[in-house]
Amino acid sequence: EFIRSVLKLHYWVFFLTTLLIFQAEIDVAVQLLLKLKTDYKHLTGQDYKAGCPPPENVVNQDNGAATDGIDEEDNVDPWNVSTSNAKGVDYDKLIVRFGSSKIETELVDRIEKVTGQKPHRFLRRGIFFSHRDMHQVLDAYEKNKSFYLYTGRGPSSEAMHVGHLIPFIFTKWLQDVFDIPLVIQLTDDEKYLWKDLAIEECHRFAVENAKDIIACGFDVNKTFIFSDFDYMGSSPEFYRNVVKIQKHVTYNQVKGIFGFTDSDCIGKISFPAIQAAPSFSNSFPQIFGGRKDVQCLIPCAIDQDPYFRMTRDVAPRIGYPKPALLHSSFFPALQGAQTKMSASDANSSIFLTDTPKQIKNKINKHAFSGGKDTIEEHRKFGGNPDVDVSFMYLTFFLDDDEQLEKIKQDYSSGALLTGELKKILIETLQPMIAQHQERRKQVTEETVKQFMTPRPLNFKL
Amino acid sequence: EFIRSVLKLHYWVFFLTTLLIFQAEIDVAVQLLLKLKTDYKHLTGQDYKAGCPPPENVVNQDNGAATDGIDEEDNVDPWNVSTSNAKGVDYDKLIVRFGSSKIETELVDRIEKVTGQKPHRFLRRGIFFSHRDMHQVLDAYEKNKSFYLYTGRGPSSEAMHVGHLIPFIFTKWLQDVFDIPLVIQLTDDEKYLWKDLAIEECHRFAVENAKDIIACGFDVNKTFIFSDFDYMGSSPEFYRNVVKIQKHVTYNQVKGIFGFTDSDCIGKISFPAIQAAPSFSNSFPQIFGGRKDVQCLIPCAIDQDPYFRMTRDVAPRIGYPKPALLHSSFFPALQGAQTKMSASDANSSIFLTDTPKQIKNKINKHAFSGGKDTIEEHRKFGGNPDVDVSFMYLTFFLDDDEQLEKIKQDYSSGALLTGELKKILIETLQPMIAQHQERRKQVTEETVKQFMTPRPLNFKL
Repeated sequence: EFIRSVLKLHYWVFFLTTLLIFQAEIDVAVQLLLKLKTDYKHLTGQDYKAGCPPPENVVNQDNGAATDGIDEEDNVDPWNVSTSNAKGVDYDKLIVRFGSSKIETELVDRIEKVTGQKPHRFLRRGIFFSHRDMHQVLDAYEKNKSFYLYTGRGPSSEAMHVGHLIPFIFTKWLQDVFDIPLVIQLTDDEKYLWKDLAIEECHRFAVENAKDIIACGFDVNKTFIFSDFDYMGSSPEFYRNVVKIQKHVTYNQVKGIFGFTDSDCIGKISFPAIQAAPSFSNSFPQIFGGRKDVQCLIPCAIDQDPYFRMTRDVAPRIGYPKPALLHSSFFPALQGAQTKMSASDANSSIFLTDTPKQIKNKINKHAFSGGKDTIEEHRKFGGNPDVDVSFMYLTFFLDDDEQLEKIKQDYSSGALLTGELKKILIETLQPMIAQHQERRKQVTEETVKQFMTPRPLNFKL
Repeated sequence: EFIRSVLKLHYWVFFLTTLLIFQAEIDVAVQLLLKLKTDYKHLTGQDYKAGCPPPENVVNQDNGAATDGIDEEDNVDPWNVSTSNAKGVDYDKLIVRFGSSKIETELVDRIEKVTGQKPHRFLRRGIFFSHRDMHQVLDAYEKNKSFYLYTGRGPSSEAMHVGHLIPFIFTKWLQDVFDIPLVIQLTDDEKYLWKDLAIEECHRFAVENAKDIIACGFDVNKTFIFSDFDYMGSSPEFYRNVVKIQKHVTYNQVKGIFGFTDSDCIGKISFPAIQAAPSFSNSFPQIFGGRKDVQCLIPCAIDQDPYFRMTRDVAPRIGYPKPALLHSSFFPALQGAQTKMSASDANSSIFLTDTPKQIKNKINKHAFSGGKDTIEEHRKFGGNPDVDVSFMYLTFFLDDDEQLEKIKQDYSSGALLTGELKKILIETLQPMIAQHQERRKQVTEETVKQFMTPRPLNFKL
């Protein structure tokens, strides 16, 4: 029986060799057909069907899977952000791709009306540019139904740079103007899973980062900061929500959303549930007394949206409200807006530990300039603020709208030179960083412990 | 550009239609070739290579992946056990497939020598039939280096049957003769992930099952029983070990070991790490004071081995000792040894809540008999104890070796009738179950709480 199989096999191999010579020609044609079909699909977003006319709307929509990239120059997921455009990522395209909503002037005006406060410069200048369900949050708030804030950070090192402060500066403002509780997740477990670091290191980075976060001025009576390694082990309710989410998300789904592969460890594959869980109020019984219906609003950089698309997909299936979101654009590296900054490259940004001299040198030496090559040319043609990193940084940190507008016009006209623009930035950042360092110095271990202890918070819903 | 693509596409579709008529014939040949190659691989365990002679060893080996099945009649994984053999699973084959070691008489004798106690009937009769590293555990024990026991149960319902007691009866004996601490994991999170049950139900089943486990007579000063939902949320050290394991196991690995598919939820995919974590002593700092080097011995049914093969693979890579194992065979259903019992079929076994009358009726009505059809034939040819469920049950629960041997001989000779054999079993089980129920009644909520509270245990290592 076995010998016969082998003989038959040899016979067929010979016969097929002859046939395959003919088939080679067919294969070329098949490949071409497949290529054409693929091209057709990219152009139309639909599968080719013989006899059907092409559709009118030929835009290729997708749900923001991490691994698209066809016709898209920008790559945005929680671990990689890259673009070839010196002005940075095309955020309008990202809104379409992710299916979120643009923060229109109307929404900014409404926030002003509801809170009675001038909108934060991040809102006025479109730095927070996209949202999900923010109108619904405001509708409820106007009917005296409050909400809570959730944001976070992956503590991959001790060193935080000014870009890392963006979500926290904005979240503090939201906490102040809405007078609501806030939870801040430090995903030390995520960093352990993704990086070549020990658990103890990741946990230490979490505590160190907490100090910088506290130095942003959060109200200890309204803020709970937690490390995943600590909180998972001290809250059965948090773990229950994690497992509930994990039951309702398949490997296929996280593969599509995050681009995981079969060689990824099972910790990465199940982690998204851990970042999702704080979106549900009953993950914090000490704060919300077991209520599962308190709406959550998440201010975060747009690269974190995949986690919360998944969360919003799961929420109704496990009986929880979907979290609302406010998305920020990326803070550019000193070298230019093509990439997100790297905490491992000291020259890629201004760090919270930099001295006034380091700040000055880094900006003068590394900040990409939109100015012209010579003073003569610059005076004649003017600089380009859209690609000038110093100007971009000022849009983040210079609060005075009129002053910023004047700088923009002077720089564009050539009245303001690159060196002068850099000087303004240096003089904006030096006191800002010095004050941050002063506030951080005052954050004692005792204060950190207070923020990081699960406890009731002071608010009314 | 777009219109050209469509036109080209139409042209190629026409051209290929013609060519594909020829290709149909080639396809038939290719299918045959692939079929032959597959057959070749099944026969030889190797990929076919033209020109290479077939290998000498034509046995298809595997590492016990859950989804094999070629040439294997028995299917054994944590969720399914089935065999077409009335004597039950072929355990010798399973030992080869899983790569474990048979418990030889020599090992049983050694356990007797080391403990100074007569070996438990489960050891004397080969009910615990397979092990990993048991000699190493005894070597260390003889040098005054102690170990701890870990076993568990998946609480899928309130109803436990006598088969569920096997690992616990044996574990209690091990605890007594070695005088060592014991941890018992109730995987209520697993049951939530796998079954259509609410978290609260699974947790309630865990507590109810704990009462039956406690009724087996465990020493509260040496035993910690925990629900995953509770303990994960009360022990940062346990979670740290879970994440550590999750970082060192890939999706490819759990797919191979457990047969998971891409449509499985991420909770199932990451769960094996949770069953693995209690194998490491620093998951219980309240017991072992942070020591990570205390050896673990796991008595369990052989279907749980895939979890611990994975655990033993990970252990050295995260700096922990590999757990040792003692594997039991399966307790047969009343209807015969072809299947493991089902907690959902009341007639498939004797439940711990059954009345004396129910026990009698179930055995008389459902226990598969190895006897002959008529008394005359039985007296003449004798019964077959190897397939007789009543006799099998007696090997589990009748402690007297001589009496059991006499029953076997009388039954085989035809001196003992099926009804008489069943009567002996009924009279063995009725008082055993009644006593269990009496002990369970005495297990108060307070006692359960005591067993399930993380706390130091009383022992010396």
